Amino acid sequence: MVHSAGGLGHGLGSLYTAERNRTPLVVLAGQQTRALLTGEPYLMARRATEFPQPYVKFAVEPARPEDVPLAIAQAFRMARQAPAGPVFVSIPEDDWDRPAPPVPLQADPSHAVVPEESLRRLAGVLTGARHPALVLGSGVSEAARAHAVALAEALDADVLVAPLTARAVFPEDHCLFAGFLQPAADRLHKALSPHDVVAVIGAPVFTLHVDAGSTLVPEATRLVHITDSPGDAAGAITGESLLGDPGDALKRLTDLCALAIGEPRPKRPKRPQPRTPPALPMAENGAPLSPEAALAVVAARLPDDAVVLEEAPTHRNAMHAHLPIRAGQRFHVAASGSLGWAMPAAVGMALAEPERTVVCLVGDGSSLYSIQSLWTAAQRGTRTVFVVLNNGGYSAMKAFGRRLGVPEAPGLDLPGIDLTALAAGFGVTARRVTTGDDLDTELARAFNADRPVLLDVTVGPAAGELY
Amino acid sequence: MVHSAGGLGHGLGSLYTAERNRTPLVVLAGQQTRALLTGEPYLMARRATEFPQPYVKFAVEPARPEDVPLAIAQAFRMARQAPAGPVFVSIPEDDWDRPAPPVPLQADPSHAVVPEESLRRLAGVLTGARHPALVLGSGVSEAARAHAVALAEALDADVLVAPLTARAVFPEDHCLFAGFLQPAADRLHKALSPHDVVAVIGAPVFTLHVDAGSTLVPEATRLVHITDSPGDAAGAITGESLLGDPGDALKRLTDLCALAIGEPRPKRPKRPQPRTPPALPMAENGAPLSPEAALAVVAARLPDDAVVLEEAPTHRNAMHAHLPIRAGQRFHVAASGSLGWAMPAAVGMALAEPERTVVCLVGDGSSLYSIQSLWTAAQRGTRTVFVVLNNGGYSAMKAFGRRLGVPEAPGLDLPGIDLTALAAGFGVTARRVTTGDDLDTELARAFNADRPVLLDVTVGPAAGELY
Amino acid sequence: MVHSAGGLGHGLGSLYTAERNRTPLVVLAGQQTRALLTGEPYLMARRATEFPQPYVKFAVEPARPEDVPLAIAQAFRMARQAPAGPVFVSIPEDDWDRPAPPVPLQADPSHAVVPEESLRRLAGVLTGARHPALVLGSGVSEAARAHAVALAEALDADVLVAPLTARAVFPEDHCLFAGFLQPAADRLHKALSPHDVVAVIGAPVFTLHVDAGSTLVPEATRLVHITDSPGDAAGAITGESLLGDPGDALKRLTDLCALAIGEPRPKRPKRPQPRTPPALPMAENGAPLSPEAALAVVAARLPDDAVVLEEAPTHRNAMHAHLPIRAGQRFHVAASGSLGWAMPAAVGMALAEPERTVVCLVGDGSSLYSIQSLWTAAQRGTRTVFVVLNNGGYSAMKAFGRRLGVPEAPGLDLPGIDLTALAAGFGVTARRVTTGDDLDTELARAFNADRPVLLDVTVGPAAGELY
Amino acid sequence: MVHSAGGLGHGLGSLYTAERNRTPLVVLAGQQTRALLTGEPYLMARRATEFPQPYVKFAVEPARPEDVPLAIAQAFRMARQAPAGPVFVSIPEDDWDRPAPPVPLQADPSHAVVPEESLRRLAGVLTGARHPALVLGSGVSEAARAHAVALAEALDADVLVAPLTARAVFPEDHCLFAGFLQPAADRLHKALSPHDVVAVIGAPVFTLHVDAGSTLVPEATRLVHITDSPGDAAGAITGESLLGDPGDALKRLTDLCALAIGEPRPKRPKRPQPRTPPALPMAENGAPLSPEAALAVVAARLPDDAVVLEEAPTHRNAMHAHLPIRAGQRFHVAASGSLGWAMPAAVGMALAEPERTVVCLVGDGSSLYSIQSLWTAAQRGTRTVFVVLNNGGYSAMKAFGRRLGVPEAPGLDLPGIDLTALAAGFGVTARRVTTGDDLDTELARAFNADRPVLLDVTVGPAAGELY
Repeated sequence: MVHSAGGLGHGLGSLYTAERNRTPLVVLAGQQTRALLTGEPYLMARRATEFPQPYVKFAVEPARPEDVPLAIAQAFRMARQAPAGPVFVSIPEDDWDRPAPPVPLQADPSHAVVPEESLRRLAGVLTGARHPALVLGSGVSEAARAHAVALAEALDADVLVAPLTARAVFPEDHCLFAGFLQPAADRLHKALSPHDVVAVIGAPVFTLHVDAGSTLVPEATRLVHITDSPGDAAGAITGESLLGDPGDALKRLTDLCALAIGEPRPKRPKRPQPRTPPALPMAENGAPLSPEAALAVVAARLPDDAVVLEEAPTHRNAMHAHLPIRAGQRFHVAASGSLGWAMPAAVGMALAEPERTVVCLVGDGSSLYSIQSLWTAAQRGTRTVFVVLNNGGYSAMKAFGRRLGVPEAPGLDLPGIDLTALAAGFGVTARRVTTGDDLDTELARAFNADRPVLLDVTVGPAAGELY
Repeated sequence: MVHSAGGLGHGLGSLYTAERNRTPLVVLAGQQTRALLTGEPYLMARRATEFPQPYVKFAVEPARPEDVPLAIAQAFRMARQAPAGPVFVSIPEDDWDRPAPPVPLQADPSHAVVPEESLRRLAGVLTGARHPALVLGSGVSEAARAHAVALAEALDADVLVAPLTARAVFPEDHCLFAGFLQPAADRLHKALSPHDVVAVIGAPVFTLHVDAGSTLVPEATRLVHITDSPGDAAGAITGESLLGDPGDALKRLTDLCALAIGEPRPKRPKRPQPRTPPALPMAENGAPLSPEAALAVVAARLPDDAVVLEEAPTHRNAMHAHLPIRAGQRFHVAASGSLGWAMPAAVGMALAEPERTVVCLVGDGSSLYSIQSLWTAAQRGTRTVFVVLNNGGYSAMKAFGRRLGVPEAPGLDLPGIDLTALAAGFGVTARRVTTGDDLDTELARAFNADRPVLLDVTVGPAAGELY
Repeated sequence: MVHSAGGLGHGLGSLYTAERNRTPLVVLAGQQTRALLTGEPYLMARRATEFPQPYVKFAVEPARPEDVPLAIAQAFRMARQAPAGPVFVSIPEDDWDRPAPPVPLQADPSHAVVPEESLRRLAGVLTGARHPALVLGSGVSEAARAHAVALAEALDADVLVAPLTARAVFPEDHCLFAGFLQPAADRLHKALSPHDVVAVIGAPVFTLHVDAGSTLVPEATRLVHITDSPGDAAGAITGESLLGDPGDALKRLTDLCALAIGEPRPKRPKRPQPRTPPALPMAENGAPLSPEAALAVVAARLPDDAVVLEEAPTHRNAMHAHLPIRAGQRFHVAASGSLGWAMPAAVGMALAEPERTVVCLVGDGSSLYSIQSLWTAAQRGTRTVFVVLNNGGYSAMKAFGRRLGVPEAPGLDLPGIDLTALAAGFGVTARRVTTGDDLDTELARAFNADRPVLLDVTVGPAAGELY
Repeated sequence: MVHSAGGLGHGLGSLYTAERNRTPLVVLAGQQTRALLTGEPYLMARRATEFPQPYVKFAVEPARPEDVPLAIAQAFRMARQAPAGPVFVSIPEDDWDRPAPPVPLQADPSHAVVPEESLRRLAGVLTGARHPALVLGSGVSEAARAHAVALAEALDADVLVAPLTARAVFPEDHCLFAGFLQPAADRLHKALSPHDVVAVIGAPVFTLHVDAGSTLVPEATRLVHITDSPGDAAGAITGESLLGDPGDALKRLTDLCALAIGEPRPKRPKRPQPRTPPALPMAENGAPLSPEAALAVVAARLPDDAVVLEEAPTHRNAMHAHLPIRAGQRFHVAASGSLGWAMPAAVGMALAEPERTVVCLVGDGSSLYSIQSLWTAAQRGTRTVFVVLNNGGYSAMKAFGRRLGVPEAPGLDLPGIDLTALAAGFGVTARRVTTGDDLDTELARAFNADRPVLLDVTVGPAAGELY
């Protein structure tokens, strides 16, 4: 619920993130009273339904006060339809006082699925492949992860995570987990080359970040695609797309592959082993804690049912390497790449599931966008552990600056900020941490606390470049 | 293909119709050359992608000339996705001269379907019903009509056509065909009252035209809904909605109903008989030919494989009564209610299927919107028979005027127009017809001609009011 | 007044023309009844205020029925503000029955003017120029033409018409009239080269049609600009812009130039002579009447107070050469370049000023877009003379095809059309004319008639290319 | 400069404020590289020019890289045109590397002014009035204030400030200053009743906040209106509107009134006295410092050239009463009513005019929206004094809740926030203040400091309701 154009405007960066994350979100915005709207009054939202465009699926300001309840009911149904996303209702202030007929609460529309014959054909292709891979994306919900595991095991297929996937879609400690695809054509091409058949499920084909050539998929690789997003299906730059619920497709594909007629593909004689994190970089004497080492400490301490949110783009590769998300754990990141989402989202998730530990990994730069969310954490006593990987600036932007030939771009350092003081100002216990041992001790304490904790972890620069 | 903002603008009334008719349509608009766009040149489309909003599913002006082929390929895939509709691509003039990489032609994304368990549940409800009805809408494609017949017969269910359905969805000479629902709450309520279960398939729940109360569905009637339109599913004012392809659902439901466990509902002891058209109103001596009589003559002469297009809103009830569309025939009308569509659409359909006879039933008022389409018919020699039901004015508007208490609204008469002269001016043979016998003779001749023919049929006023 | 989305859609090509012509236009669109709007009813305009974008200055669907009168009153004031243009009000059908408070009818806001000191400075520049030119555009209203003449005479300045100007802004038989600028950079550059100071008044700097280089104004030429369009002022690619009413500026500049301190620039010793039309091309034996000759016949017969509308783009250069618009005459053309405007506009102007003769010069291709307007002319008995320069096709498009290297573009011929039959079908007297003498005779008769007349003049191809 | 859709989205609340404040603002947004835009890449802004609508005057993503400099130049000219406002340019990342022709830097278009004869007529009306009033709004720039004083003195007219005016437009210690109009019809009507002629200059007629009747202007009062906003002129609900620069009009009106023919209206025999602030409410023992008393302390200490920004809506009436903005001082508030603007604006103004003292008066609730701005103040060492009137919550919302019959609306208290810790965390010196004496001492120190200071002033509740 936001206030007219000012409140809505403040939230439109987050609305963009909600759209990219396919969050089912109903935004109700107050509007000035109908009696004043002809005269551009104070606090009016002009042409209210246009402001959230193009990042809502539907926007309406009902033509009459009595239509508001029905509009809200329709909004809820729309928001949850596949692909889920934000919906907007603008409500003049005086409408709340008017009578309206009751609106029946109806079940959500069912999700549509891939037709049986299409899946059957796909099962044939997959079971006949020499070295298939599954590429899984954010469309694979938490509930569907078990089906993904079953399918991968049935096929003895490598599992890759689609570029910039916004959630954990496969246990990263599973022996078939084969890593994260990068959002750059050259890296994609290389990673897909070993596979004769690739099934991309619940992801676009493909989300790119940087321009690195135009050939994403090797010519010899056959690509099939399952998605519940018509836009992703139409936009797929190669392969064949099947529209329907990805989770349902994973489940039915598993059964169909088990049944596949004829001799199935022989499995690999020796089952691959779960990936082990690479060795940590050797720390020089006196050097600050490396982000890799810090993440390894977090990984070691992370509760089995932890929910991890990340907004530390500089450290994404390190996180992938050193902080594998395991079977019972959850992981979320903003698909928009927009900063300021992870901290309030971490508080919200802790409110929604108070029994789980929520860990929010943010950079110091990212942490400042929505630092106010600490207050809500403190006031509501959420079990959120904020781990700030503090390298004193916007390192991702510095890295891009180097990539673009602007090594000294201004405004990317963040000196003079005391995150522990800020946390204290909002009522959250905070500690500054500089060594791996301290981090370990403080994390242990934080995971046992029944209140939010912020750890301001001084780290050195990231190793290597992002792509 | 249209010209910039002027040509696109001229076509936006038809684009609106295409959107409501769910026509898979790719609109390519020329744009001024990129070099001039910063200065509001002559013939420029300003903010080109906004003009066709909100009646396109997607609109783009590619950021580079070399992206145009891919944008067009994506547009074609999008236009055909369910629910089908218009897509817009704006192309600067100089882009056509630039090199671009080839774009692979891919299969369309498959259509998603209703999950098996949902259909199974629905089959149980339908087979257990006392007096079920199927309400079919424009989402039932020509190919799906046979499935609709099979399901209705399996269930011994009455079949009603959803309000303002834009195509023939069930043979109107079938014994289970039970008529057309009207787009007014009171009429709907009454028509659905005999049924304990109503399955609305391929239509909104419901499209209304006039405000006649707020209770559309009787309390004792259980309504289920199958649609491939997320908007129709979210907007359904009652009942439960299942998302998925309607034709696929009809087919699978038939099988599931046949298999339904337990004792199926006993069928009606006496099979209903096909509806027969009501008796024609008695013609007074010297009175002009009645529209009902004229339509009966058309019905009697109509070839078994005719395609009928209608744009004579005054005579819709008469057409439903006296011109039943039979099993092998096709029927189309503009779902938008916008005039000017039927004549060019009839020419287009005759071009697409030259072996079929296309009959375009229009009012004299409607015929004037796109009278120029006669020229295309003449030049291309299409087998189109234009039957103008000429009552000398806009009778539908007169009827609405009476309904709204404005019986003498100006501008609704159309004196002084000679349609045969207009047809001749465009090269189409035309005759004026005033009696049923003449109409019969001329129709016989027209259906045998290998060129377009226009019959200007003078008719009297429509009987009764629309609703 | 248009009907919902269908009627509005049909009119959006004309709305675009109205916007480019700066026509003060209030569009009232019917909307479905408020009670039905939550459910996408038949004939609904979805997000009604977006459809006419981006070619309206303002669009509103009032939040309450009682606000409709005030919204319409505001719309009228807005439409007439400088720069004038279309404004849109969407009105739900049931609103007309609701009570509303009376709205005071207020005077239009005054037009703002250029500050005195700016004009004074400009007067100094102009009187000190060696060889100044005035470039006048559509912003010079009919009422301001006399001021334009006075200023030109005070300065002994050449007067040029800005590219694609949509009305007559200076008597073309005046000795200082120096011709029409072409919308191409190379032509502009050449035409402005003789002048050390150029004042562009009431026009953009400049409207282009084709890409012919990027240097529009010679380096040695000082350009000053007066306009009441903020967009034209901001977009001017060179020179200094003054915002304010062009007519007011012309009047005050004349006085200020007369008063200019010091010795004014010596006038040309020998006053230039009025331009005489070039010799007509020699007609070969048996060749059809040339468009140039036809226009010369029209020019000779044209009444002193005629209003001329043109929509024959192929013949624009010939018209400029052979049909000079004289002091008491008026001239209009669609600034949009969009076809279909001139014929209905000619009927409307004849209705507005029944005492004047309105002449509509159209191509045969253009005439087909709105041929229905003949019916209104016939029914209302307007004094409109339609002169169709019939060359059997879309010659402007053929010329562009040649320019773009596509000499044989399909669909540009228009065989098999009998315009006299079409006119007869709508009740307008029409004659086919093939010689200059016949044209002269028929024109004489038509200008004396008190009813509309259409002359279908068979002409040969245009001489030369457009630019 | 903002980042694509995420960064732009975060800023759209402020963009709305910029639009309402008529801030000339050019927003440059990064866009993904052109090569990736066809595929919805990471960080892409979809349909980039639509997101900032409807709060920009113009939005463009140039069609070619080489057009970017011209687009930016046009944007700068447009942003400053009257009425000033935001303009948007979206720039694909790779465009920065492409060559482009140089763009000439041109003078801004001049501002248009009210025609002489209109002002002359208005001068007659004003000099002939019995008891005229000037109502001044945000369109009266700082430079025009002296003209406003001269005109008021020439006329001996009362000067009122238009409702919700966003800047100081008249010295509040001047004897003709007569107070602030309230944005409610009943209050407006009462305040204008004594005046036979009211000239509203540089403001809408009128901006309302709450619905309190429909009669704003007494029948006997003649209202004239000068504005440079076409929308405000068209939307004025009564009176006559003149379009043109308000400052220019004030200056010329003063001269014209001095010259007005005939005997001018006799001035009031006894010149009114400057308003004196009302007595402070008596403080009870132990009660917290009242906001009125706190503001009186600020007023007494306020430097003569101070710039005051306010975002403490609860205390607006108290500020008007106890903190008069004097001749050399400046004042600004967000015309949007949107929170989060004042603190960053105060830092920006201090950067722009480092020699002046900038005082930012904010509520504790308001201060949290952009608390991060303290860091910029600290890093850049601006001379900004932040005075937080801390009443522990969102009192304005509580007041509205009471007005709307929801006295106990949740979420309006702000316990557990330590503003001094937050300030310290960002590097700004801060002190908590609870008495008037302490406030006086700390203000004295702060005004002498060469660095930012935050004073967290604990205050009691506001007296009375807002309107």
